[in-house]
Amino acid sequence: MNYQSLALHTDFYQITMAACYHANSMNKMSGFSLFAHNLPEKRGYMVAAGLEIALDYLENFRFSDQDIQYLDSLNRFKPEFLDYLSDVRFTGDVWALPEGTVCRAGEPLLEVTAPLIEAQLVETFLVNTLNLHTTLTSKAARCVRAAKGRTLLDFGLRRTQGPDAGMSAARSSAIAGFAGTSNVAAAQVLGTMPVGTMAHSFVEAFGDEEKAFKAFVDIFPKQGVFLVDTYDTVAGLKHAMECAQQLEKNGQKLLGVRIDSGDLVAGTRQAREMLDKAGFEDAAVVVSGSLDEFRIQELISQGAQIDMMGVGTKMACSADAPFLDLVYKLVKYDDRPTLKLCTGKETWVENKQIWRQTNDQGIITHDLLGLRTENNPGRPMLNQVMVQGKITEKEDWRAAHERFEEEVKTLPAHCLDITQPAPYDIKITPTLMNLQQKTKDEALSRCLS
Amino acid sequence: MNYQSLALHTDFYQITMAACYHANSMNKMSGFSLFAHNLPEKRGYMVAAGLEIALDYLENFRFSDQDIQYLDSLNRFKPEFLDYLSDVRFTGDVWALPEGTVCRAGEPLLEVTAPLIEAQLVETFLVNTLNLHTTLTSKAARCVRAAKGRTLLDFGLRRTQGPDAGMSAARSSAIAGFAGTSNVAAAQVLGTMPVGTMAHSFVEAFGDEEKAFKAFVDIFPKQGVFLVDTYDTVAGLKHAMECAQQLEKNGQKLLGVRIDSGDLVAGTRQAREMLDKAGFEDAAVVVSGSLDEFRIQELISQGAQIDMMGVGTKMACSADAPFLDLVYKLVKYDDRPTLKLCTGKETWVENKQIWRQTNDQGIITHDLLGLRTENNPGRPMLNQVMVQGKITEKEDWRAAHERFEEEVKTLPAHCLDITQPAPYDIKITPTLMNLQQKTKDEALSRCLS
Repeated sequence: MNYQSLALHTDFYQITMAACYHANSMNKMSGFSLFAHNLPEKRGYMVAAGLEIALDYLENFRFSDQDIQYLDSLNRFKPEFLDYLSDVRFTGDVWALPEGTVCRAGEPLLEVTAPLIEAQLVETFLVNTLNLHTTLTSKAARCVRAAKGRTLLDFGLRRTQGPDAGMSAARSSAIAGFAGTSNVAAAQVLGTMPVGTMAHSFVEAFGDEEKAFKAFVDIFPKQGVFLVDTYDTVAGLKHAMECAQQLEKNGQKLLGVRIDSGDLVAGTRQAREMLDKAGFEDAAVVVSGSLDEFRIQELISQGAQIDMMGVGTKMACSADAPFLDLVYKLVKYDDRPTLKLCTGKETWVENKQIWRQTNDQGIITHDLLGLRTENNPGRPMLNQVMVQGKITEKEDWRAAHERFEEEVKTLPAHCLDITQPAPYDIKITPTLMNLQQKTKDEALSRCLS
Repeated sequence: MNYQSLALHTDFYQITMAACYHANSMNKMSGFSLFAHNLPEKRGYMVAAGLEIALDYLENFRFSDQDIQYLDSLNRFKPEFLDYLSDVRFTGDVWALPEGTVCRAGEPLLEVTAPLIEAQLVETFLVNTLNLHTTLTSKAARCVRAAKGRTLLDFGLRRTQGPDAGMSAARSSAIAGFAGTSNVAAAQVLGTMPVGTMAHSFVEAFGDEEKAFKAFVDIFPKQGVFLVDTYDTVAGLKHAMECAQQLEKNGQKLLGVRIDSGDLVAGTRQAREMLDKAGFEDAAVVVSGSLDEFRIQELISQGAQIDMMGVGTKMACSADAPFLDLVYKLVKYDDRPTLKLCTGKETWVENKQIWRQTNDQGIITHDLLGLRTENNPGRPMLNQVMVQGKITEKEDWRAAHERFEEEVKTLPAHCLDITQPAPYDIKITPTLMNLQQKTKDEALSRCLS
């Protein structure tokens, strides 16, 4: 991405507010907290993700000359404010949950401490980025859980919100444990091997399954995964077997067969039986087509014989819950704790820390949420990752994936349940609770006066 | 977007299939049809969109030298194939529904006629682009319908799948009739004025609503829309009135008040009453917060007093139906009609045309789907928009918006219903029906032989 031009990918009110703050010399240190008010119905946890992209954005934040010219052309802003904007950089500190950390609603994913204008100007991008990556990684993690060790592949590119979103879906699913992606550009960036063999159109263009399968292994002798459901799955499987036997004579092996439609339980059982009978015990049965964690769980519970799954649209859109209600709330300004009262959607004031409490088996019993300045038992979860606008902890998706592999083991079973999950508990420290009540009382008395 | 690098934003199987076709000299003219098998439950029509972006992609399609080097590094492809790829351009013809056209499941949004390899290589991007724009424009059109003439604004950027998706949401909602967007970069590209004034954090940073409102109109005297629900909506409205009376003394006018939370029916009625009583009949009542067509319909039917609405997340994610099952299917190869049989999800063979049938009032009675070469009564809906890789009909979002304004008037009421819509009818011409049956019989006898 070209960071020179990302500053205008923001809501206009960030800039009108900045203009007012600038005119009033209101640019003292502020604290913002980014968190989800609630999780969607069928989510028992979130997997924090997107931090690498968010920090890159912050470190490179600036308005280009063209951006400033455009803002000037709107005839809303004074020259001294536009001069300020053309020089502004993000100089704040950031504390965050490292990518791959499991967390729940009410817990900050990220906290910014920065001069008010800077902290406000970066809001829209931060919310957008953490929402996208956390939504997709959390969805992909559920698919991995449902698959019970079977290999998952990202097939989602054709239904994401544009090609850039396809990159995010591939990265998110890789963090959650998907073994590969069909997205060539994403595989290039992630450093993995892109996956895929043939579509139905391939079989149709040849007009004949045997010809199509043979043509494929002529060019890719070690990559033969035959798509067998273009016309009739059983006939397709027979054609695949015949082709595989030919391969074997040449000392080569069939990698697998893929079924994309029809009765996947019956189809995969038939495929497994035919493959085993013909001596192709190592060949994989691959399925695809509208898969998500619910469908995967259903297929496995009904006895489908599956080794590998292409999971596309429903993961890459997080179709049942396409967003998290992540918000970025002012929690302090110039050493004064702040909050919004009106909705019942309370925000916990001030810079905070999460202390994770686990039992003897390492399973989470609950989290403590308190002020960052407190000392509390348990593992502190938010790390400082940026100091005065410079990244201090840099990690890629592989580090995030490794962390997630450990983190997911700490979740209680009720969080991991696919259909009726419940989050672990969160407790607020007395210190935070007292400050919250005091701030609320003051705000109420002020606003009603 | 940098078109030099978009070629790898594709599924890997497009490239493995291309390698096989190339090795077998299978690159005769092919026909592909892009359509939705079914619409989501609560959709009575689609609004075709995304064509401008799709055609730009096709006209600029190429693999860069770096792309070729990357593919070479995978050790899967022969030099002669990579040489072919480095020179390949899209040289095909495209027929499509112009953007803003209303349509239904089973009708082609776009048909490609091109050498097989070229047509295959562009599949993923075409499906992705038309899916995204058609999904969002169709969703935004439902919001416009539900709003019954009230002004809608796009507030969706913070929950789209990345900043590029935010651009698409703004463009899609503009086609459907949204009056503006908060997305600064999108407003710049669309040529509209970005919208927005203040967030809750603005009021909290001042710690006092009157100070905050006054500071805002000091800088933007003509743009005052005060956010009144940070602490207590009624108190906030009183503070807004006081500030507005001050404005009036200076010969200026309050533009409006915004309520983002709480009971929006009671809140907006209270706001309207207070504004009218104080003589601010022209000031707008603006609402925002989790709005979509269902909530808009509910608010209006319950008597909420609303002039303008900020519609964000649920429109920009099309939250209840975040994708359409758009597919891109081979319908002919080398003058031979083709289809896929196995799933029951039939594809109509060959290049097609839609002829729209309307009654005396100009309302759609049904569409005829037939072969492009047929002559049929009614208005032909698919236009040729690209000849041999060159765009012949170029339109921007404004033309699409104007078309949609006319098109939406042709939909029967049952299509437009928000909660229980039903599509208009589609009839298949006897010529297409006969060719379909013949092709099916042949494919079945061949694959089962």
